[in-house]
Amino acid sequence: MKAEIITIGDEILIGQIVDTNSAWMAEQLNLAGVEVYQITSVHDRREHILTALKEAGERADLVLVTGGLGPTKDDITKTCLCEFFDTRLVFHEPTLNHITEKYKNRGVDMNKLNRGQAMLPESCTVLFNAEGSAPGMWFERDGTIYVSMPGVPFEMKWIMTHEVLPRLVGHGMLDVIIHKTVLTQGVPESMLAIRIEDWENALPPYIKLAYLPGPMAVRLRLTATGSDAAVLQAEIDRQVEMLKKLLPNDIYGYGQETMAEVTGKLLMEKNARLAVAESCTGGHISHMLTLVPGASRWYTGGITAYDNNVKTSVLGVLPETLEQYGAVSEQTAIEMAQGVRRLLNADFAVATTGIAGPDGGTEDKPVGTVWIAVASRTKFIAQKYVFGSNRERNILRSSQTALQMLRKLLVAGEK
Amino acid sequence: MKAEIITIGDEILIGQIVDTNSAWMAEQLNLAGVEVYQITSVHDRREHILTALKEAGERADLVLVTGGLGPTKDDITKTCLCEFFDTRLVFHEPTLNHITEKYKNRGVDMNKLNRGQAMLPESCTVLFNAEGSAPGMWFERDGTIYVSMPGVPFEMKWIMTHEVLPRLVGHGMLDVIIHKTVLTQGVPESMLAIRIEDWENALPPYIKLAYLPGPMAVRLRLTATGSDAAVLQAEIDRQVEMLKKLLPNDIYGYGQETMAEVTGKLLMEKNARLAVAESCTGGHISHMLTLVPGASRWYTGGITAYDNNVKTSVLGVLPETLEQYGAVSEQTAIEMAQGVRRLLNADFAVATTGIAGPDGGTEDKPVGTVWIAVASRTKFIAQKYVFGSNRERNILRSSQTALQMLRKLLVAGEK
Repeated sequence: MKAEIITIGDEILIGQIVDTNSAWMAEQLNLAGVEVYQITSVHDRREHILTALKEAGERADLVLVTGGLGPTKDDITKTCLCEFFDTRLVFHEPTLNHITEKYKNRGVDMNKLNRGQAMLPESCTVLFNAEGSAPGMWFERDGTIYVSMPGVPFEMKWIMTHEVLPRLVGHGMLDVIIHKTVLTQGVPESMLAIRIEDWENALPPYIKLAYLPGPMAVRLRLTATGSDAAVLQAEIDRQVEMLKKLLPNDIYGYGQETMAEVTGKLLMEKNARLAVAESCTGGHISHMLTLVPGASRWYTGGITAYDNNVKTSVLGVLPETLEQYGAVSEQTAIEMAQGVRRLLNADFAVATTGIAGPDGGTEDKPVGTVWIAVASRTKFIAQKYVFGSNRERNILRSSQTALQMLRKLLVAGEK
Repeated sequence: MKAEIITIGDEILIGQIVDTNSAWMAEQLNLAGVEVYQITSVHDRREHILTALKEAGERADLVLVTGGLGPTKDDITKTCLCEFFDTRLVFHEPTLNHITEKYKNRGVDMNKLNRGQAMLPESCTVLFNAEGSAPGMWFERDGTIYVSMPGVPFEMKWIMTHEVLPRLVGHGMLDVIIHKTVLTQGVPESMLAIRIEDWENALPPYIKLAYLPGPMAVRLRLTATGSDAAVLQAEIDRQVEMLKKLLPNDIYGYGQETMAEVTGKLLMEKNARLAVAESCTGGHISHMLTLVPGASRWYTGGITAYDNNVKTSVLGVLPETLEQYGAVSEQTAIEMAQGVRRLLNADFAVATTGIAGPDGGTEDKPVGTVWIAVASRTKFIAQKYVFGSNRERNILRSSQTALQMLRKLLVAGEK
């Protein structure tokens, strides 16, 4: 089975946006055993779209199309599909009801452009889009399947996950593919590879390992391909158990779990609550924690102490500490953590203070220097890190590292 | 002049990496007045590469190829180019000297694979690569230019900037293309389209408008094509001035600016400082602000008051207010804003309180309900919004909306 991806939109071809949809779709298809033969990006132009559909259809059994489904004049994918499949736009009531509902909930009035999104090609199977007003469209011709989806990534992902991939399995087009992703943090990819080298070399041939490094984690993805799901699952679970023994402290979760979710679960188990004090991370740790639904059960709140006066007046850091050791120091980090834990009446606290960059570095405290402290009611730990020169990456890495320090403390049984 | 981009590499088609090279090259070419007609990603396979080169060459005057130039077996682009241009690999001494020099500086021994990178097609112009060992290659045939570059982004960028673009300018471009992107927030795409419909219809034929919607903004991109850069720029500026009159409050910036940068500039001009109090946005506003380098000049800090006790004990929200109106109310939002402004000794403050979801909604306060307050030393404004059901998007939209409210207050001349 061969697939092709067509992404439609002038914004891609003038380099206004990076096409991340294709990589995501290609990964999903590959994990499901479908080879992506080609990815093609074309303009919002009739003849160009029609040519791309024709050429892809001649090469592939499955053609995934994204983009050009918005309500405005520059979006013409739908009319091109009508021309290509020799059909016409007809009114689709369920879609109109869905759009009406969406607008009602938002308290916004609908207009003729929104209603226009309920006009859909007569010959297609409409794919529900829970995240937006432009549904997906499924066509079949001469044994080739064509699917058109919006270019908005989270809408495309919803339709792929809930509508497209299940239908493809139903058509018997996909192998049994089982994958498990192990999330590690704090060990560089190259060091990780050396630590698990023997285990990796001993993997059975039907299990593939991929290193997926990023600022928040190095993800290890195991993918097993075969005919018997139960057998594959059992072997993957066995391999992961062996891996856990090799990386006892560095694995924080699996699959789509976030460090914040894992930490939140541990806190809930202890019926404990967390507070954070942030300087260089500027609120990002608090943001990570509050992305987790129900975080209020284990997160009391946080203080972003960007100005040193806030460190002293609100968090109770001693002015002498700032004077003697500076804001970016072990002592300040510890006083920040202890201060916020008391102030917000929490059981645990984390604190960060550092130089995110691009400026502000010194000889002995270069850009990327970060002190992180974790405190419980009875003890505290502080650790210095030196990250890179990129401001955003320093914020992400400091945040994730702080939560990893807390997670290890919680796993170690701290009350 | 028409260009096409071909990216070669299995890693793209299995979704292991996102192809960021194409967007960067496309942007550079557009700025240089070259239209990119199509972007095509293909496998490291001989017949596929040859077909892609042939098809692109038939459509375009310029074909940029990246990837497949590494020293290992799986990289076959160079031999495919030899076959396509009916030439052979010959030894290129300057390249070998460059590679030798690189390895000497790194104190690493060279092997035969490295030396192999000095074997280059006889009929090409070698393009120096200061950043790596695989040089670029420039071919011309039947009036079409073909350039092959490594897929490593910083190597490709160096060759493009120092070798390819200067040569292309030398070849004299036909068209000049000028873009201007206008950033709007708070008006849905379809409503925006109706408000500017007459203006859009009256645009001169050589200016194209594109709507680029997202959770943080609806971006309006104007693209002018012609021969005289000054004329195009003047007309785009004139059109943007007209657009500003149609959307006086909703435009917050241009190009790559962020709402946080724009707000920060306005605060600095007033020599004023900002504090934030966040409930439903959970620290994200603080994160957006502190992503801006030098934010400490205008941002004092923030309180994430996730627990209602923090709203009362730290921010000074009255318990009666919470009892009588609830945490998600105009009164609470206003007291949070005023409280944090006083506590962190700032001139301005923003506060958010709402139901981010997915749970916690009620009949009269459904998920997505958010109260946002903005306060100065002398006045305050509060506004209710109802966003969607997606937690992350609610956080992003609430954060951006809060900063837009503040920006409007600052622009209105509030001290």
